[in-house]
Amino acid sequence: MKRRTGRRPGAGDTRGEILTAARQVFAEKGFDKATIRGIARAAAVDPALVHHYFETKEGLFVAAMRLPIDPAQVVPLVLEGPREEVGERLVRFILTVTSDAQAREPVLALLRSAMTNEQVLGMIREFITNALLYKVADGLGVSHLRMEAAFGQLIGVVLARYVLALEPLASADLEELVELLAPTVQRYLTP
Amino acid sequence: MKRRTGRRPGAGDTRGEILTAARQVFAEKGFDKATIRGIARAAAVDPALVHHYFETKEGLFVAAMRLPIDPAQVVPLVLEGPREEVGERLVRFILTVTSDAQAREPVLALLRSAMTNEQVLGMIREFITNALLYKVADGLGVSHLRMEAAFGQLIGVVLARYVLALEPLASADLEELVELLAPTVQRYLTP
Repeated sequence: MKRRTGRRPGAGDTRGEILTAARQVFAEKGFDKATIRGIARAAAVDPALVHHYFETKEGLFVAAMRLPIDPAQVVPLVLEGPREEVGERLVRFILTVTSDAQAREPVLALLRSAMTNEQVLGMIREFITNALLYKVADGLGVSHLRMEAAFGQLIGVVLARYVLALEPLASADLEELVELLAPTVQRYLTP
Repeated sequence: MKRRTGRRPGAGDTRGEILTAARQVFAEKGFDKATIRGIARAAAVDPALVHHYFETKEGLFVAAMRLPIDPAQVVPLVLEGPREEVGERLVRFILTVTSDAQAREPVLALLRSAMTNEQVLGMIREFITNALLYKVADGLGVSHLRMEAAFGQLIGVVLARYVLALEPLASADLEELVELLAPTVQRYLTP
């Protein structure tokens, strides 16, 4: 148990200190109400330094929770490219990212604690909707409900494939799954 | 802490004793390897009595886990009725059952413990596939993979609606959701 003693002079692991502070502040305040300024204060560093390392609050959240999916990458990925392939693009992206056990573990850990901890739940609910789903939906011009139906399909398949490990889904070829699931997501994301 | 002292004479809560024994045996052996005979032995009752109360191993599992969904009801429900409405029928059934918080809670409790306990996980994996999904899939003549894609959609929406409570999905009208989701499930369940 290392005691934190306010502002630390010199280098040290400033980035790590910011991440620790971010985890505390996000858990306490939720994603929406947490600010870069507040997290900088908790880490006893200048807000400019937080911006320097993580650019945005979304980027800081992703790093703090070790998430494999950064809205700064996934939102453009979904919005750019042919509109008639958006379903395929999104399904392939999610299945590819989650096929890596190391990338998957922090997501499942967060889901686990959300299921037993109301504070964690509120935090990831705000992140999923405001930082991720609503941005994609608004960019595509589809309703938030349709976006959440697509999210339901994707998270349900990830859960069935990697947590419940239902066969034959758990061993199914990625491309076979893309073919099966892409039309569903395409339909939801077509206004 | 009541100690169990072998065969109990007379009435008592025999049904409750069987359920307690069933929870132990299912957790130890999984769903597939547990038998009515073994559970009767653990409860120190005659197997005929277990059959009398619960009819089948599936029925006993459902009662022991307090599940709102009994394969003996849901499998016929999906298989009977117009084939071109199977998606709508299944979506409406799942959304109706899970709209009752009391019915939902044991399912979520089981999912929670499956996410942290490998034994519980194995047990519900066997139940979901062998007692539920494969039966429906075989009855409809669709592949197990397509059935699990449909399951992924349904469990994902239940998770997003009731656990994560994402808005607007959490407050969406049941009929609006049926309209949105039924074509997806219909497509998966059409060979």
